[in-house]
Amino acid sequence: MATERIASWAVNLSYSSLPPEVIQAAVSSFYNWVGCAVGGALHPTTTTASEALSPFFGKPTSSLLGQKGARTDASHAALLNGIASHVHDYDDTHLPTIIHPTGPVASALFAQAEALGGVKGEDFILALVAGIEAECKLGMGVWPKHYDIGWHITSTVGSIGAAVAVGKLLRLERTPMQHAISIASTQVTGLRDMFGTDTKSFHVGRAAQNGLIAAVLAARGYTGSLQAIEAPRGWARVVSTANNVDEQVTTLGQQWEIVRNAFKPYPCGIVVHPVIDGCVQLHGEMQAAGVSAEDITSVHVRVHPLVLELTGKKTPQDGLQAKFSVYHGGAIGLVLGKAGPAQYEDAVVLSAEIVGVRDKISATADESLGADETKITVELSNGKTLTKHVVHAIGSVEVPMTNAQLEDKFIDQVSLVLGADGAQAASEACWALQGSASVADIVKGF
Amino acid sequence: MATERIASWAVNLSYSSLPPEVIQAAVSSFYNWVGCAVGGALHPTTTTASEALSPFFGKPTSSLLGQKGARTDASHAALLNGIASHVHDYDDTHLPTIIHPTGPVASALFAQAEALGGVKGEDFILALVAGIEAECKLGMGVWPKHYDIGWHITSTVGSIGAAVAVGKLLRLERTPMQHAISIASTQVTGLRDMFGTDTKSFHVGRAAQNGLIAAVLAARGYTGSLQAIEAPRGWARVVSTANNVDEQVTTLGQQWEIVRNAFKPYPCGIVVHPVIDGCVQLHGEMQAAGVSAEDITSVHVRVHPLVLELTGKKTPQDGLQAKFSVYHGGAIGLVLGKAGPAQYEDAVVLSAEIVGVRDKISATADESLGADETKITVELSNGKTLTKHVVHAIGSVEVPMTNAQLEDKFIDQVSLVLGADGAQAASEACWALQGSASVADIVKGF
Repeated sequence: MATERIASWAVNLSYSSLPPEVIQAAVSSFYNWVGCAVGGALHPTTTTASEALSPFFGKPTSSLLGQKGARTDASHAALLNGIASHVHDYDDTHLPTIIHPTGPVASALFAQAEALGGVKGEDFILALVAGIEAECKLGMGVWPKHYDIGWHITSTVGSIGAAVAVGKLLRLERTPMQHAISIASTQVTGLRDMFGTDTKSFHVGRAAQNGLIAAVLAARGYTGSLQAIEAPRGWARVVSTANNVDEQVTTLGQQWEIVRNAFKPYPCGIVVHPVIDGCVQLHGEMQAAGVSAEDITSVHVRVHPLVLELTGKKTPQDGLQAKFSVYHGGAIGLVLGKAGPAQYEDAVVLSAEIVGVRDKISATADESLGADETKITVELSNGKTLTKHVVHAIGSVEVPMTNAQLEDKFIDQVSLVLGADGAQAASEACWALQGSASVADIVKGF
Repeated sequence: MATERIASWAVNLSYSSLPPEVIQAAVSSFYNWVGCAVGGALHPTTTTASEALSPFFGKPTSSLLGQKGARTDASHAALLNGIASHVHDYDDTHLPTIIHPTGPVASALFAQAEALGGVKGEDFILALVAGIEAECKLGMGVWPKHYDIGWHITSTVGSIGAAVAVGKLLRLERTPMQHAISIASTQVTGLRDMFGTDTKSFHVGRAAQNGLIAAVLAARGYTGSLQAIEAPRGWARVVSTANNVDEQVTTLGQQWEIVRNAFKPYPCGIVVHPVIDGCVQLHGEMQAAGVSAEDITSVHVRVHPLVLELTGKKTPQDGLQAKFSVYHGGAIGLVLGKAGPAQYEDAVVLSAEIVGVRDKISATADESLGADETKITVELSNGKTLTKHVVHAIGSVEVPMTNAQLEDKFIDQVSLVLGADGAQAASEACWALQGSASVADIVKGF
């Protein structure tokens, strides 16, 4: 039932039926995906994959984002942009399932849209929404058992979401769309055991490629099982010990999942975000009051116990370690008032200014606090005390990032690759997705 | 432990340490793989995939077997030759696990060997053996639970075998070989629910491609988990509810799996093979006695119950249905003395000569018989009775196909694509694998 239901829903979905908040969420998701993909373009995990696979590259129809006009075939572009978009762990999060939904779907869809040419922004948005909704409903259908077993849910359901999106772009009818879902579902990519290695990001790229290939094969009449998702030995039962996929897919188009897609304000584990958020706010208040970071004598943060369990590293020695340090997160917030990729570079992590404040921070686990909550106390040399209670960190469902904040994030990431002017131009082009006559034009020049 | 053990065993394996029967098995496995891949080259499942994916094709370094010199990049050649080699269900079988081992491994290895150029036959055999041994040991480690759950074991372990083979060809050291295994293991391709569709063969091709990409990435320093197979959330535990992988890999190089690789004499379900075998033998005896098929008044076969359960179709209407008909199998054996692809073409299935004998065949299930055993009684119009007791069908461990029989099979398959002369030339070139100075030369012209 689920396979047919997803297919017929996606096939029948029309742009005019999308609520405005869904369209807005799709534009923001695309915008954030481009920022992350450009931001990750020069990361060794991306460039190594690109070099290793370059002997297989085909006709250059599709952009390698952030590589200044470099192009390859759509299949490799899907793979490499997918890798780049995830490599900084800075992509979006569908909060009910912790799926990062846009990476697999948009990486496949954009590469294929460029190869086709002349794809309008509205058609792109429609396909993106179809793919992300299918992906997240399937994720909710197998969550949490599927993840507990050891599957990287972003890529396992991402393959299927990518197939639905590309299938929608190719205007597949219902039966071929079922086959596309099926061919994608049989390529179950992503073990959690790979976390902490290059292969984690590879999962996202490979999911994009799995889905793209599935849709392209199905468009030519290639067949899979028409009950791939729900069959007795179908995807849902094979990859999870429990599922309610059939139930979840009945809510397609009623409860939109893309509106529950959140954006990470900071390129580090989500549990550190409340402390960073509070410290960034305190930085602003201190600046307004003419107080500098040198005036800080001590900082104390009360946090949910998980924060110290996952990010309790006291003296991180490089950028990667710093992502697992609530102390570094607090220090950059207080000293620099920012926590973008630049604030996680090795030199910043080891700078005297940051280490000085970092070592003044103490932390206590407090079970009464939510995972997105913190209470911060800063003592100053003038005897004054500042406090901040963050009830819900920015980037939570309750306090989503504003477009302006998303833009700051985009500019921060993209500037490192394209420079300030390039980043500004890219930002404007991406925000204009909805009215685009050909989405391929959006990335011209980057 | 398993990941490191497989890697170090494969890295240290030398050609001089291979027993002669292992080398012979490798040559036969390669030979049979080429025959199957050429024989499947023009099947719609292969040609549709090729047409659909051609927009992504890269530099033509590697042959599409059976397509008369057509070439593409190694990654797509691995995929498409893998599909072709499996599409007639006529490839080899590792009997303890029903893995079809050579398809994924040789498809990746040969494509990469052609891309590299100058790969000697001995180096190719060495890499092929390394890949097939790793693949089959992993298969034995998760068998039968992994298959029961719903995984197509040929492709799931095939990805890893392909990575080991290509890694060996690329002369990876131990740690990169562990990463290659790891990157392959995270791409778990193949649900049994796809059986009966184009996607079943796609699994074999995609497994080849998964492994090839894994090895090529690892060769550039790409990292995965060094304990990918045995980790608490590693491959073996995620894809099976029980495994003894660590135990199995300790037998690498002691119990060779490739010598348990069998070749199918007939392109149909293995349970029909005893009846075909017996009927082909009876055909010869009847010819010698001057008796023709028209003299047959009735035929009775006693078979293992599974035979009627799986292949009890009385009046097949086309070649595909005939593969599931023990009656058609018996008829072509008695009338034509052969059961190759040509005897499963629709016209033969519906011919008066075959249908006439087919309808005279009755069958009884007999639990006292083995799955590879049958007792056949043929009554003739002259009042005489012929009987045949097949204890072990040809293609079983006890009665393997001889090289001459394997050659007949190869010629039968390849002639349909390359003509009789082309098939003979191809056969000679493939048998000469061991002494080849460059394996790419073997397939020149086909």
